[in-house]
Amino acid sequence: MPATFKAPLKDTRFVLRHVCGLDRYRNLPGFAEATPDLVNAILEEGAKFVEQVLAPLNQVGDREGCTRHPDGSVTTPTGFRDAYRQFVEGGWGTLMAPKEYGGQGLPHVIGSAFEEYLSAANMAFAMYPGLTQGAVSALLVAGSEAQKALYVPPMVEGRWTGTMNLTEPHAGTDLGLIRTRAEPQEDGSWKISGTKIFISSGEHDLSENIIHLVLAKTPGAPDSVKGISLFLVPKYLVNPDGSLGARNALSCGAIEHKMGIHGNSTCVMNYDGATGFLVGEEMKGLRAMFVMMNVARLGVGVQGLGQAEVAYQNAAAYAKERLQGRALTGAKKSDAKADPILVHPDVRRMLLDARAFIEGARALSLWAALQADLARHAETAEAREEAEDLLSLLTPVIKAYLTDKGYFHATQAQQVFGGHGYIAEWGMEQFVRDARIAMIYEGANGIQALDLVGRKLATNGGRSLRRFLALVEAEIEEAKRHDALAPFAGDLAAAKADLEGATMWLMEKAFANPDHAGAGATAYLELMALVAFGMLWLRMLRAADMAESEDPAFLNAKRIVGRHFFERHLPDAPALARKVKAGADTIMAMPEAAF
Amino acid sequence: MPATFKAPLKDTRFVLRHVCGLDRYRNLPGFAEATPDLVNAILEEGAKFVEQVLAPLNQVGDREGCTRHPDGSVTTPTGFRDAYRQFVEGGWGTLMAPKEYGGQGLPHVIGSAFEEYLSAANMAFAMYPGLTQGAVSALLVAGSEAQKALYVPPMVEGRWTGTMNLTEPHAGTDLGLIRTRAEPQEDGSWKISGTKIFISSGEHDLSENIIHLVLAKTPGAPDSVKGISLFLVPKYLVNPDGSLGARNALSCGAIEHKMGIHGNSTCVMNYDGATGFLVGEEMKGLRAMFVMMNVARLGVGVQGLGQAEVAYQNAAAYAKERLQGRALTGAKKSDAKADPILVHPDVRRMLLDARAFIEGARALSLWAALQADLARHAETAEAREEAEDLLSLLTPVIKAYLTDKGYFHATQAQQVFGGHGYIAEWGMEQFVRDARIAMIYEGANGIQALDLVGRKLATNGGRSLRRFLALVEAEIEEAKRHDALAPFAGDLAAAKADLEGATMWLMEKAFANPDHAGAGATAYLELMALVAFGMLWLRMLRAADMAESEDPAFLNAKRIVGRHFFERHLPDAPALARKVKAGADTIMAMPEAAF
Repeated sequence: MPATFKAPLKDTRFVLRHVCGLDRYRNLPGFAEATPDLVNAILEEGAKFVEQVLAPLNQVGDREGCTRHPDGSVTTPTGFRDAYRQFVEGGWGTLMAPKEYGGQGLPHVIGSAFEEYLSAANMAFAMYPGLTQGAVSALLVAGSEAQKALYVPPMVEGRWTGTMNLTEPHAGTDLGLIRTRAEPQEDGSWKISGTKIFISSGEHDLSENIIHLVLAKTPGAPDSVKGISLFLVPKYLVNPDGSLGARNALSCGAIEHKMGIHGNSTCVMNYDGATGFLVGEEMKGLRAMFVMMNVARLGVGVQGLGQAEVAYQNAAAYAKERLQGRALTGAKKSDAKADPILVHPDVRRMLLDARAFIEGARALSLWAALQADLARHAETAEAREEAEDLLSLLTPVIKAYLTDKGYFHATQAQQVFGGHGYIAEWGMEQFVRDARIAMIYEGANGIQALDLVGRKLATNGGRSLRRFLALVEAEIEEAKRHDALAPFAGDLAAAKADLEGATMWLMEKAFANPDHAGAGATAYLELMALVAFGMLWLRMLRAADMAESEDPAFLNAKRIVGRHFFERHLPDAPALARKVKAGADTIMAMPEAAF
Repeated sequence: MPATFKAPLKDTRFVLRHVCGLDRYRNLPGFAEATPDLVNAILEEGAKFVEQVLAPLNQVGDREGCTRHPDGSVTTPTGFRDAYRQFVEGGWGTLMAPKEYGGQGLPHVIGSAFEEYLSAANMAFAMYPGLTQGAVSALLVAGSEAQKALYVPPMVEGRWTGTMNLTEPHAGTDLGLIRTRAEPQEDGSWKISGTKIFISSGEHDLSENIIHLVLAKTPGAPDSVKGISLFLVPKYLVNPDGSLGARNALSCGAIEHKMGIHGNSTCVMNYDGATGFLVGEEMKGLRAMFVMMNVARLGVGVQGLGQAEVAYQNAAAYAKERLQGRALTGAKKSDAKADPILVHPDVRRMLLDARAFIEGARALSLWAALQADLARHAETAEAREEAEDLLSLLTPVIKAYLTDKGYFHATQAQQVFGGHGYIAEWGMEQFVRDARIAMIYEGANGIQALDLVGRKLATNGGRSLRRFLALVEAEIEEAKRHDALAPFAGDLAAAKADLEGATMWLMEKAFANPDHAGAGATAYLELMALVAFGMLWLRMLRAADMAESEDPAFLNAKRIVGRHFFERHLPDAPALARKVKAGADTIMAMPEAAF
C-alpha cells in the first residue's frame, strides 16, 4: 500500500540514444568514457539505490519532518543519515563534478538522468546533495583557486554539503532589497550579519560541515542588485589543511512549517557576525549566484518531472488493481465482481495525459542537459554558442512548464485513487504537496516567464529563438517524409506558426508598452513548451518507427503516447497564442482598489 | 498575517438581482417573504458570523485537527464547539428547511449564497451542518411521516447532526460492492453490521446526537446497486418523545489522516449490530441517497468556489502590500524602495483569472440554486420541468468545474505569495489542501463527466441540452443588440457552435462505441461549463451597462472582469471540442501492461 518507485530505465536509455544521440559525441571530453555500458551500469546501480534506499524513506520523511533542538541543531528524519552515508559511499554526488576536484567528470546529461530518479524517489532527500551541487557550480565559476582547492573536494565527495542564502523576509524576487551586511576585517575575511529565510538544507545532521553561500551587502554598496556580493560562510571554519576549526557565529533560528518536502530542513538562518569569505569580486555576487541558479532551475524542472513520474507509476498500478464498476462496453473480467478501473477511458486519459507530459519532459530535460555539455565541450565555437543559446532560451521554459505540469499531473494521478488519494498513508497527496514548491522556488514561474519574454527572446537580436525555430522546422521537414508522421508534422507546423505569430505580436507591441510582454508571458512560455515538446515527440516517433531492434512493446507504447500528445496536448496552442495577443489593456485597466 | 475573509456581499446582491432576477418570483412560496430587505439582513448577519466567528478558527482547525480518544469519542479543534453553539443559536441551519420542521422555508438561492460564505470562511466546519442538511433532504424525500417528525426537527435546529455512510474499503464509486449487512428484527428494526470509511462528521462533540444514514444490504439482496437499502442509525437511540435513549452499537474506529479539511472528523465507522431503521423501501436505498447527493454536489461545487474566493482575497491583499521590484513601465511608487507586486501584469493576470472564474461560478451556482427552487415552486408544470431539466444537466458541470477550477485558482492565489505561500502560517497552502477534496468526494469529477455525457445528455431525448442551448442563444441575441457586447456575443456563439459540434460528434460516435463518450467526457464537461459561464457573463455585462444607479466602481470592475473572461477563458473552447473529437481510439489502444 505505501507508494513505490521504479526508475524508468528503458525510457531514459531510449531518450539518451534517440533524442540526445549520445553516440555522436564520443570525441568530446567526458563523453568518451560514457560508453553505453558504463552509462547503463551507472543508471542501473543508481536505480537500485534510489528504489531500495531512498524511496522507502519518502513517506517517513514527510511524516516525521526535521527537528530543531534547543541548541539550534537539527536532526533529519529516521533513516536519512544512513541513506546519506550510502549516497556518499556510492559516490553519487561525484558523477558530474570535474576530475580535478574528485569528481567523475561525466556529462551533465548522465547526471541529469540520475537526478530525475533521485527527485522522484525522495525529493526532500535529493535537495541535500542538490543544493551542494549548486554551491559547487558557483564556487567553480567564481571562487578563487585557493577556495576551490579547500572547499570543493569535500563537497563533491559529500562529506560537506552546501546551501544558497538569498531570500530575506522582505526580499525574495527583488534581491536588491536585502539587508544582510558584510563588514571587512583586517585579515581579509568579512563579518556577516543578517537573517535569511527559506534556506533549504540550512542545518542538519547529514554532513560534517555545511558551506553556506550568502548574499550580502558591503559597506557603501548601492541599494540595488548592483550592490550585492557573495560570501562563503562555513558552519565550521576550515583550517588550511582542510580540518575543521571553530564553530562559526551562525545558527538555525527556526524550521519553517511547510506544505511539503518535510524531510528537507528549510531554515531561518541567523548570521551574527559570522566569518565569511568573499567569492569573486565585490558587488558582483549576483552573477555567480545566477550560474548556480541556472543549474538549479533545470534541476527544479526535473523535480516537477520526477513527482509526476512517481505519482503516475502509483496511479497506473492502482488503476490495474482497483476493482470498481464495469467497462462501458461490457464487463471485461466477468469472473471478478468488478473490472479494474483501468478499463475506463477517462482514467486512461488521465494516465496518458501524464505519460505524454512525462516522456516529453524527460526528452526535453535530457536534451537541455546535453546542451549544457555541448556549450562547454563542443568542438567549434559556433556549436558551443548554439548550445548555449538553446539552453539559455529553454531554461525558464523547462523550469516553469515542467513544474506547473508536474504538479498538475501529480494532482491528476492522485485523482485516480479517488478518496484514497486524499489519505496520507497512500502517499499520493505527498507527491502533490512536494511538487508544489517547485513552481515557487528558484524564481517563481511567473518570473521564469518574464525572463523568457523580457530577456531571453531579445538577447543577441533574437538569435536563440531563430535557432530554436530552425531546429523545430528541421524536425518537421524530416517527419513529413514519413507517411505515418506527416499529420503530426502538420500539427506542429501550425503550432510553430502560432508561436511565431505570438512572437511577432509581442515584439511589435511590447516595444511600445512592456506590460504587453508581462501580460502574455505565461501563455507564451507554455506555447513555446508545447512546440519544444512537439519537436521532441516527432523525433521520438521517428525513432520508434525506425528502431525495429528494440523492445516492440515499448516502441508500440511510445507511438501511442506520442499520438496522444498530438491529439490532446498540442491542440492548446492556438488558444495560448490568442491569450498572448489579448495583451495588457484589460489587465491593467483594473483599478488597484477593485482587486 | 493570518488569512482573513470578507463575504462578497456586493457581488452576491448583484447576482441575486441581475442574474437570478429574484424580484420576478415574489409570487412563489418562500420568495414572498424573501424581500430584498430580509435577504440583505440575512446576508449581512451571515457575513458577520462567518467573518468573526468561523474564519478565525480556520487555521486553528487545520493545525489541531480532530482527536479520537481511546473510548472512541472525538473532540473537534479548539473553538469549534462554541462556534457551533453560535451557529445553532443564530438559526443558521434553518434557512432553507421547511417551516413544518422548524425551518424558515426560504428559497435555496438564499441558502446557497450563505453556504458559499460558510465554506469560504471555514470549509471543515461548514461540513458539519452541510452533511446534516444532506441527511435532512434524504429523510424529507424518503422517510416516513413518523421518521420525519421524530428526527428532522432537531436536525434542522442543529441540536443533532447527520452523516451519509456510503463508502467501504472496497466500494467507492461502485456501491454495488458494499458488504454492510442489515438483519431484520422482530420489532421491525434492523441490526446493521459493517465498516464504512471516509465518513465526514462521523463522530464529534458538537451535537447531542448524530443521525447516520447508512447504505446496507438486506438478506438475499442482489450483489448490485439494486440490492441496496438505506437505514437511519442514530448514535443514541431516540425515545418516542424525542429524548435520547441508549447508546447504539456503533463507533468511530479511527480518524483518517488527510491532506486537508483537518477540522472535520473523517471517520472509519464500525457498525456492530447497531439498531437501524429502514428509510423508504427495501432495496430502493440508492434513490434516496441520490437525492441527498444531488443537493450535496451543488454544495461541493460551492466549496470549490469558496476556497478560490478566500484564497483570491488574501492574494489580492498581499499583492497590494508586498513591495518587490519595479513596474515594467517604470517605478510607480518612487518614494518606496519597491512597487507593490500588483503592478506586474502577470500577477494581475493570475488575480483576474481567479476573479473571472469566481464571479462566473457565483452566478452559475446561485442560478442553479434558483432552478432548484423553481423546479419545486414554479407556477406551471412546464416551468417546473424546465428548471428541473436545467438543474439536472448542470449539476455535474457545477460540481466538477467549480471544484477543478476552484483548486486551480486557489493554487494560483498561493503562487502570488511566492515562498510565503508554501509556509503554513500564511494560510494559503491550507486553502489548496482543503479545496483538493472537493474534486474527489460526492462522486469524483471523472464520474461527474460520465454522468453528464452518459446520462444527462440523453435523458428525455436530449431535452435538457436543447433547453440550455436555447437559453444561451437567447442571451447571445440579446447581447448582440448592445454594441459593446456584440463581439462577446460573437465569441460565445462560436463556443456554442463548438459545444454543438462536440455534442453531435459524441451522439454519432458513442452510439457505436461508448468509450468515445468516456474519452471525451471531461473535455466536454469543461466546454459546457465555459458556455454556461459565457451566457452568465453576457447577462452580467448587460446588467452592468444598464444598472447605472449602482456603485459605478463596482460596475466598472464587473465590466473589466467580464472582458477578461472573454479574452482569457473562453478561447479554450475550440481545443476542448478538438479533444472530445479525438475520441477513444488512441486511449483504448494502450495495452494494460504498457501503463
